[in-house]
Amino acid sequence: MTDSDTDPTPEALAERVRAGEVRFHALEEHADPDTATAARRLLVEEQSGASLETVGEYAFDAAAADPNIENMIGAVQIPAGVVGPVTVDGGAASGNYYLPMATTEGALLASVNRGCSVIDRAGGATARVTTSGMTRAPVFRVDSVVEGEALASWVRDNGSTLKDAAEETTSHGELEAVKPYVVGDNVFLRFRYDTKDAMGMNMATIATQAACDVVEAETTASLVALSGNLCTDKKPAAINAVEGRGRSVTADVLIPRDVVEERLHTTPAAIAEVNTRKNLVGSAKAGSLGFNAHVANVVAAMFLATGQDAAQVVEGANAITTADVREEGLYASVSLASLEVGTVGGGTKLPTQAEGLDVLGVRGGGDPAGNNADALAECIAVGALAGELSLLSALASRHLSSAHESLGR
Amino acid sequence: MTDSDTDPTPEALAERVRAGEVRFHALEEHADPDTATAARRLLVEEQSGASLETVGEYAFDAAAADPNIENMIGAVQIPAGVVGPVTVDGGAASGNYYLPMATTEGALLASVNRGCSVIDRAGGATARVTTSGMTRAPVFRVDSVVEGEALASWVRDNGSTLKDAAEETTSHGELEAVKPYVVGDNVFLRFRYDTKDAMGMNMATIATQAACDVVEAETTASLVALSGNLCTDKKPAAINAVEGRGRSVTADVLIPRDVVEERLHTTPAAIAEVNTRKNLVGSAKAGSLGFNAHVANVVAAMFLATGQDAAQVVEGANAITTADVREEGLYASVSLASLEVGTVGGGTKLPTQAEGLDVLGVRGGGDPAGNNADALAECIAVGALAGELSLLSALASRHLSSAHESLGR
Amino acid sequence: MTDSDTDPTPEALAERVRAGEVRFHALEEHADPDTATAARRLLVEEQSGASLETVGEYAFDAAAADPNIENMIGAVQIPAGVVGPVTVDGGAASGNYYLPMATTEGALLASVNRGCSVIDRAGGATARVTTSGMTRAPVFRVDSVVEGEALASWVRDNGSTLKDAAEETTSHGELEAVKPYVVGDNVFLRFRYDTKDAMGMNMATIATQAACDVVEAETTASLVALSGNLCTDKKPAAINAVEGRGRSVTADVLIPRDVVEERLHTTPAAIAEVNTRKNLVGSAKAGSLGFNAHVANVVAAMFLATGQDAAQVVEGANAITTADVREEGLYASVSLASLEVGTVGGGTKLPTQAEGLDVLGVRGGGDPAGNNADALAECIAVGALAGELSLLSALASRHLSSAHESLGR
Amino acid sequence: MTDSDTDPTPEALAERVRAGEVRFHALEEHADPDTATAARRLLVEEQSGASLETVGEYAFDAAAADPNIENMIGAVQIPAGVVGPVTVDGGAASGNYYLPMATTEGALLASVNRGCSVIDRAGGATARVTTSGMTRAPVFRVDSVVEGEALASWVRDNGSTLKDAAEETTSHGELEAVKPYVVGDNVFLRFRYDTKDAMGMNMATIATQAACDVVEAETTASLVALSGNLCTDKKPAAINAVEGRGRSVTADVLIPRDVVEERLHTTPAAIAEVNTRKNLVGSAKAGSLGFNAHVANVVAAMFLATGQDAAQVVEGANAITTADVREEGLYASVSLASLEVGTVGGGTKLPTQAEGLDVLGVRGGGDPAGNNADALAECIAVGALAGELSLLSALASRHLSSAHESLGR
Repeated sequence: MTDSDTDPTPEALAERVRAGEVRFHALEEHADPDTATAARRLLVEEQSGASLETVGEYAFDAAAADPNIENMIGAVQIPAGVVGPVTVDGGAASGNYYLPMATTEGALLASVNRGCSVIDRAGGATARVTTSGMTRAPVFRVDSVVEGEALASWVRDNGSTLKDAAEETTSHGELEAVKPYVVGDNVFLRFRYDTKDAMGMNMATIATQAACDVVEAETTASLVALSGNLCTDKKPAAINAVEGRGRSVTADVLIPRDVVEERLHTTPAAIAEVNTRKNLVGSAKAGSLGFNAHVANVVAAMFLATGQDAAQVVEGANAITTADVREEGLYASVSLASLEVGTVGGGTKLPTQAEGLDVLGVRGGGDPAGNNADALAECIAVGALAGELSLLSALASRHLSSAHESLGR
Repeated sequence: MTDSDTDPTPEALAERVRAGEVRFHALEEHADPDTATAARRLLVEEQSGASLETVGEYAFDAAAADPNIENMIGAVQIPAGVVGPVTVDGGAASGNYYLPMATTEGALLASVNRGCSVIDRAGGATARVTTSGMTRAPVFRVDSVVEGEALASWVRDNGSTLKDAAEETTSHGELEAVKPYVVGDNVFLRFRYDTKDAMGMNMATIATQAACDVVEAETTASLVALSGNLCTDKKPAAINAVEGRGRSVTADVLIPRDVVEERLHTTPAAIAEVNTRKNLVGSAKAGSLGFNAHVANVVAAMFLATGQDAAQVVEGANAITTADVREEGLYASVSLASLEVGTVGGGTKLPTQAEGLDVLGVRGGGDPAGNNADALAECIAVGALAGELSLLSALASRHLSSAHESLGR
Repeated sequence: MTDSDTDPTPEALAERVRAGEVRFHALEEHADPDTATAARRLLVEEQSGASLETVGEYAFDAAAADPNIENMIGAVQIPAGVVGPVTVDGGAASGNYYLPMATTEGALLASVNRGCSVIDRAGGATARVTTSGMTRAPVFRVDSVVEGEALASWVRDNGSTLKDAAEETTSHGELEAVKPYVVGDNVFLRFRYDTKDAMGMNMATIATQAACDVVEAETTASLVALSGNLCTDKKPAAINAVEGRGRSVTADVLIPRDVVEERLHTTPAAIAEVNTRKNLVGSAKAGSLGFNAHVANVVAAMFLATGQDAAQVVEGANAITTADVREEGLYASVSLASLEVGTVGGGTKLPTQAEGLDVLGVRGGGDPAGNNADALAECIAVGALAGELSLLSALASRHLSSAHESLGR
Repeated sequence: MTDSDTDPTPEALAERVRAGEVRFHALEEHADPDTATAARRLLVEEQSGASLETVGEYAFDAAAADPNIENMIGAVQIPAGVVGPVTVDGGAASGNYYLPMATTEGALLASVNRGCSVIDRAGGATARVTTSGMTRAPVFRVDSVVEGEALASWVRDNGSTLKDAAEETTSHGELEAVKPYVVGDNVFLRFRYDTKDAMGMNMATIATQAACDVVEAETTASLVALSGNLCTDKKPAAINAVEGRGRSVTADVLIPRDVVEERLHTTPAAIAEVNTRKNLVGSAKAGSLGFNAHVANVVAAMFLATGQDAAQVVEGANAITTADVREEGLYASVSLASLEVGTVGGGTKLPTQAEGLDVLGVRGGGDPAGNNADALAECIAVGALAGELSLLSALASRHLSSAHESLGR
């Protein structure tokens, strides 16, 4: 990839950029990735006056990050820790897990850890992936609703043609459904795939492009955008909250009354009341798609620790928490409608992130395929449940702000 | 903080945990933070079979992360890069900026960089913070709507009492408004603060607790939860999309037609069409609160690079992108309704994150106070605009999936 | 039904209520319906001091309203008119139609009429029902997510059993799908039916009850409510906007540029701009599920004129209006996601409402079954399109308020 | 208004339309309103083959409907009844009320009546209007966000100028607030008015036009549409559910446990459970803005009976129902966020509708102004509460469908 036998120094490479001989974003064509990264740091330091010393102290070969970033200058380091261990009785996950989390929000791990401890005292949490599928929804332009309806019919009649075209692009993915939505002279086709252990957005995108080529060849419709926002990726959207995207996963637990009282210093009824007034009525009044306390905190922290896409925390927040008083104590659950996770591809190969997956024993492809990503989803759901239990009980006993005062900043 | 003159080795400390003498989450009480972190790594490796070697190679003193995490085992390293430089004409930001981004999603920086290049060719982007304020909304239980209405009236009549109580807890924050919402026997009070350069959620939480103490002392209402989800923090919610939270910020640009054609290989009309069909009609059909293509990608990457709270990417996705054909070319804008950012507190003091803020010249408190956080918001908005322009034009010229194929994975 | 050979006078019957011998709501057991209604009027007049003279001048036998109301005192009279005629090229409707509308909002018919006139000048509007199905979604309580997942699996495996049970209760309805949604220990089953020419909510309710009996007999789940709000009936809900309920129907038209200019006194570009800024961006900012100008006005007026359920105007407002400039002129469309209509049952048999259906030629069952309700949906969609065109162009030429000033009050 | 000394017969007038001498929509210029209406009926009958005999038997002078409809052919008759009497302890309403309702949905009045009976047994319901204000939100085009921010500032600084301009157009209305929202090159100004006893949309529209004239004269902004959909009128929208429109009104009641058991044949706990699983969790999962069972039914029926705008049932459905077990029994409430009602103007002057208002004693302007509309809102809220109680308890005791079988259909 480099253009000389001897790699230049970062300084020399930076000088060539200043001289206009080499472009800032193309340094990797003229030096090994670490040198290119160092040269870029020099140039950014020069332009901004910042020191990038710590950013430059990354603990992996820059080459390893090549599929993940361009214009690299180093790495950001996010403090990482674990909570647990917590017992998970899942459809795919099973056992006693430390949950890895990376965050900058003080008090978060302490809070989730408290929840894990209570869950474990109650015998562990149950978790299940209830639906699954990665989606991509191109938008086509048609002449009129007559043509739109014809396209919708064509799609319903030619499912196997589309499936063949889509699956030719992937060795693992399977096209499970294509659903048409007609809006005036727009037709949206929502493709749903089983992408196994991959989060699958790229797989779905590539496969959908192939299917769109067929649609354009066989019908009068014209592709406007390969993503028409009915997917919906990285935007809060009811279609995900209702229909799911990635994994729909629920974790729940039944906590004996005495455990609630001794460990959470409150009662099942008080927690249920907070949940109803805050998570249900409050979110209702807010016009929210997230009926929970802080599921996004756990999703974000576990996403960062395991190499998931941080922007998909958006959909991860589409979660409903329930809390009911039962004779035996408190039943609590968290249902995440659209948790998009993978254990292969994306950021999962990066060294620290791969180690995070190893903590859960879910790195790489599962057996059967998809099992590792299911297990990851279940572990995140249990972490989210622990976080909800802890915060709801903290609110119930009114020490949220004091917890922040002593632990956080 | 440690209990002996000589710190134990990680191995010795781990052994004490195994022996039940020391608790896993309390290692910092028995050793310096780095030793405690190393011991915890040993224990997690043992339990999970994972190697945590790279997670342990963090480039800062564990003590520095003390306000940010508990149960620390090391750090996750996210590849970081820059896009730009891009010219920002903001209310607070002004000049030519490299935008720091940390991500694991290949092709993202290349895409945003292309957008920055086009913006710069057009003379730079404009940006303005249009509204500002961090919110916290406790929920109170009242006896009936009569009492609820009385509480709402009391709040409207006693604004200065609440303001005094709230502001006594903070040297910088200012309580700007308290708005009551009555739902049956629930009353939600949405407190809005000017928190200057701090993201301000903790400040708002602590100040609101003080105000709630007054409410409980002076009225018959009973506090159920210090956060009643009308805040709304870390959940997608229309109240934020409509009313704003943190900074509401818009970036826009007018790109000459020839620049669109030569640099983006498409036309203003084609980009406007994609924007209407995908970002407006598609998001409408999806029941979305995010009328944009991938603003969350840029928000997430810049949040990670500058020490912001990754879970607040959720609200950061509440953005509307517009694209209109004008005589001169393409007018495009991105308006983020609820971008919660700070340049002090939280993760901003961590070494790599502080360096990220330095790249933008916005580390620490601004002059006047709030100016640095405003500038950060404006830079993120411009980055988001660059990302939108690049993706919309890529979709318009139909090479989204091939871009992913060659650059990402 | 009456208890004597000779019916009492209204006065005598009222006196028996005052004497405590007969209950106010049971007058029909003691007199013919018209006498009972008259007696009830007397009692209400007495209690309230109101005169109910005009309410009592209804033009049908009270017995005819027996399936539609209890505690009858007479009828409310809503002014009715027609717009058009307008040419509809639908999948079921075809020809030149006067559209009947009942309303109290001055200027509405004049406005819609103007839109019809323009549509007709353009050769008429096209309309198609793109999806169809009435839904009912009971909620079940289960023990845990494990049982919830088991129930979801059972439902997927026992579709024909549920179908048999449901269809045994109805001679016309067909159960087309049952989709499970798991949220903690709640399982929602969304049943979707083809109810032919009936709006079908009662049919769906009764059939779903029968299916629920099977679910309860065959599984451990316990029915909590026959409607669990995922139906969703008479509440604004994204699930309807996204997935449809009743008929999803689109009407569109291509209006030559000169017609826009001469008849609407504006331009295709100006209308498209208003549509984008108001109906798309404005509704986006409002957190709306209705991306249109005033579709509900036409839905409400045609619902009232044809005996539909006025409370279902709520879902009728889930509509997206698009307006694009094409070379030939203005393309405009309205897509109503969840228009719940019927031409048999409900209010359709009442005399004035039946006459309203006759104006459209869609009274009673269609041939094939469902055709009349489809045609009604298409006619309403065309009326809505006419209303949108008229209001958008009025806004574009800025005479909304003056139109109200001269025509309305 | 007529063009001859002697009015023509309907037949003669119809003949002149056929001959092309008189236009269908202008018949009122050539005959008295009743003759014009009759002629129009003849023409519609001829064209459609329908008989309009009953539509023609309206019980008022057509001239009375002149402000309410154009192209009149007669009237639709909706069966009307009453429920109650029920005791209302409101801020404006006070006493024992029959609630007038017009509907075609069998079983509705019986159901609401049952709820009223239970409320009365509990001593009546409480009701309060908690916020109030009719809104209109024009959208302006600006050059860029810089100009947008300038406009927002100008508006904040020139409130009294706008207030003067707006209030010059109305003898009763008061402009209470103008709130700017910036989205790219769009600025929405949400005007909020106290419109006293008028529903106020026309008043707000006219006043806002006057204020917009000032904005256009004093700034560089250009009005695109007098309504920019942030109002939001007749579309489901979170901005109304959150911020309110028209009246925000709550009704609540505390029902002793024995009354629940004896009259509703269920328990407070069972009703609370149905409310949580259906109205809160179910609506959450549905992506709804309506967290209630069937509030729209009561809103629609009382709107029709009192001359309100049927299309505004849409916003009327933005309601949250709560149900909690208290020591004394069941606490239940309904909070309608955006109930748009008036007792003057619109359809309130029509004979049957005016009689409906008289039943409640709220016809015409209140004392003080606004009091009658407040009382109407409170009565509707109590009716809605009765409907919720009845349906929730029917679901709790599982006889929804059998109730429909025996009473409806």
